[in-house]
Amino acid sequence: ASVGLAQAAERPADVPEGMGALPASVPVPADNPMTPAKVELGKQLYLDPALSKSGNISCNSCHNLGSWGVDNQVRSIGHKWQRGGRNAPTSFNAAFWSTQFWDGRAPQLEDQAKGPPMNPVEMADDTEAQLVARLQEAGYGPEFDKVFGKNGLSFNNMAKAIGAFERTLLTPDAPFDRYVRGEGDISAAAKRGMKKVDDIGCTSCHSGPLFTNNTFQQFNYGTDTGREAVTGKHDDDHYFRVQSWRNVAMTAPYFHDGSVKTLSEAVRIMARVQLGTKLSDADVADIVAFLKTLTGTPPSVTYPVFPRPAGHALNWMD
Amino acid sequence: ASVGLAQAAERPADVPEGMGALPASVPVPADNPMTPAKVELGKQLYLDPALSKSGNISCNSCHNLGSWGVDNQVRSIGHKWQRGGRNAPTSFNAAFWSTQFWDGRAPQLEDQAKGPPMNPVEMADDTEAQLVARLQEAGYGPEFDKVFGKNGLSFNNMAKAIGAFERTLLTPDAPFDRYVRGEGDISAAAKRGMKKVDDIGCTSCHSGPLFTNNTFQQFNYGTDTGREAVTGKHDDDHYFRVQSWRNVAMTAPYFHDGSVKTLSEAVRIMARVQLGTKLSDADVADIVAFLKTLTGTPPSVTYPVFPRPAGHALNWMD
Ligand code: HEC
Ligand code: HEC
Ligand code: HEC
Ligand code: HEC
Ligand SMILES: [Ca+2]
Ligand SMILES: [Ca+2]
Repeated sequence: ASVGLAQAAERPADVPEGMGALPASVPVPADNPMTPAKVELGKQLYLDPALSKSGNISCNSCHNLGSWGVDNQVRSIGHKWQRGGRNAPTSFNAAFWSTQFWDGRAPQLEDQAKGPPMNPVEMADDTEAQLVARLQEAGYGPEFDKVFGKNGLSFNNMAKAIGAFERTLLTPDAPFDRYVRGEGDISAAAKRGMKKVDDIGCTSCHSGPLFTNNTFQQFNYGTDTGREAVTGKHDDDHYFRVQSWRNVAMTAPYFHDGSVKTLSEAVRIMARVQLGTKLSDADVADIVAFLKTLTGTPPSVTYPVFPRPAGHALNWMD
Repeated sequence: ASVGLAQAAERPADVPEGMGALPASVPVPADNPMTPAKVELGKQLYLDPALSKSGNISCNSCHNLGSWGVDNQVRSIGHKWQRGGRNAPTSFNAAFWSTQFWDGRAPQLEDQAKGPPMNPVEMADDTEAQLVARLQEAGYGPEFDKVFGKNGLSFNNMAKAIGAFERTLLTPDAPFDRYVRGEGDISAAAKRGMKKVDDIGCTSCHSGPLFTNNTFQQFNYGTDTGREAVTGKHDDDHYFRVQSWRNVAMTAPYFHDGSVKTLSEAVRIMARVQLGTKLSDADVADIVAFLKTLTGTPPSVTYPVFPRPAGHALNWMD
């Protein structure tokens, strides 16, 4: 069958309406066009622990490029080994989400990137000026100027460069994507899972090629009130952005509190809490087999060289 | 002059005898031949925080490939934010040293690589078996088997793969190397510094193309007894391996205790403690200018993808 499909190169009839391959390109905000130099600068900043007060923590500490944009921790380890309040979602494909953070409190990547440096349990910089001064001392000035023009080094532009880099962190060509394009096959179990999630209504929220409709939905689980703290509206109590299923097999543990160790348990809980359904073990196994077909190809990244002053160290602080 | 030299492509007459370009290849132990697959595996292991009990610390945390194989900390940050007792030397060109660690307590890279995982203030694994089990669960088994044959995943082979990778972390083509090969020029100040270090005797210890004679020498500075603790001989009190000058401008802060912030101060102290000489400010500036010409080209590394289990997280512990 797989050979036949590969030759036909057309969408198999059993793929439910709405599902599709990962889009090849992401939305880019008008005020932050992507250029190769900006992406390169953003890559340096993403990987550079000089963004943190201690010199020990980078974006990559919690969103490791080698492990699908996550740290696989229940709650991430930040400044002085403090644990944050939520599980770190992946930076991969984040460019596709309507908002950033579990509670959607950042409209887009550029806003999001300003959070961690100033967060006392993450990178713990005291002020934006302190961080900018450190980047200046490290030698980032000329690189920012090249990308953003004279006196280009600023907190805003740091966030822009990081956002531009993150828009390259896409994971195309998952087995499901190849299947839907008629280029490869997936297992019989995965096909049953694909039908099941459509039949029972998972795809009312986890819809489309991203397997999220990018809306906020109530998830009555745990003590975190989610979006209520952002909007101040009690109606938003326990609302969270619908998480994408893209690479979900590689981003354990699960849910905003990282409380669930396995994907099968997360599926069971979703069925119960969101749909009032108790799934059979066979159904859970099929759905998990399908979710595993959504693991794509991670971006290929050449390790950057960070600017550093010659002959003296940066002034890390604890 | 620089054009003439570049055309002549011969060794300039002013380069002191013994000095030379970084060797193009490193010694490789007979029992650990380098293969592309082994180097690739070693690269994954070097960058993977799964080597640590917490899942938070990799070799790269302290020997960052983006910052010249160091973390620029006085003393590195390890498990639970503990600080170790010494400054982290660079992993770049370490393949050239006669022994590893400031006190030379590890004969070669393979021995060295077994230290950090078991060090309670670094990666803090309780036992070798615990670490091997975690690597197994992560999915490293098949990769080790491909490189080392059946049941290839072991603590020993982990160290071998890391050692093989580290032998690729060479930094050729420093401005000095291009100068000595007649391919480029260095500044007049650097040339004066080059002559000075030879005249006053720095190069009795910092000799040859590596700018270390790879011996242990007494350095009566600080409270660390150095090699005495390794050999148990009082004669070795305050003996340390002569540090290479390769990339030394990028590896601040200085000395085994990281107590010195600037390269010029380190030069002043060396002259005083090792040679009983007080250098003029001009001499110090010239020597620093010369040392800066020993900053080479860092290795180009593609970020690896770590093996990870699908559908569940590894069991990190604190
Ligand atoms: C110490 C850990 C840590 C560090 C450092 C860190 N993050 Fe995060 N990141 C998190 C956590 C935890 C969340 C979720 C927080 C929340 O939703 O309240 C998050 C959320 C995100 C999101 C939102 C993804 C989504 O699906 O909503 C993006 C994008 C992101 N981080 C990128 C970055 C970038 C870029 C940096 C560096 C500037 C960074 N992170 C630094 C832990 C970290
Ligand atoms: C009413 C909307 C809705 C429905 C229906 C729904 N989900 Fe979800 N799903 C969400 C939201 C919201 C989240 C984010 C939960 C959180 O904040 O932890 C989520 C998260 C998940 C996660 C965890 C993702 C992660 O990275 O932690 C999985 C897995 C998942 N859903 C699978 C399913 C499956 C399978 C079904 C059907 C059985 C389903 N969902 C039905 C809204 C929904
Ligand atoms: C928490 C910090 C930390 C971690 C993690 C760490 N190192 Fe180190 N490394 C150091 C320090 C500090 C020293 C010097 C210790 C000494 O001399 O007593 C050192 C020494 C070395 C040396 C000797 C270099 C020389 O010039 O003698 C090499 C090579 C090295 N480390 C490689 C590694 C590898 C490979 C790993 C991972 C398996 C690793 N390190 C993990 C901090 C660290
Ligand atoms: C008698 C041997 C000897 C002589 C002579 C000597 N050094 Fe050193 N040098 C060492 C040793 C040993 C170390 C390692 C010191 C330590 O353990 O911190 C070192 C370290 C250094 C360092 C710091 C490297 C680092 O990464 O922290 C610099 C810079 C340096 N030497 C420069 C010089 C200069 C310049 C001179 C001449 C003025 C000189 N040395 C003369 C033995 C010597
Ligand atoms: Ca997760
Ligand atoms: Ca140093």
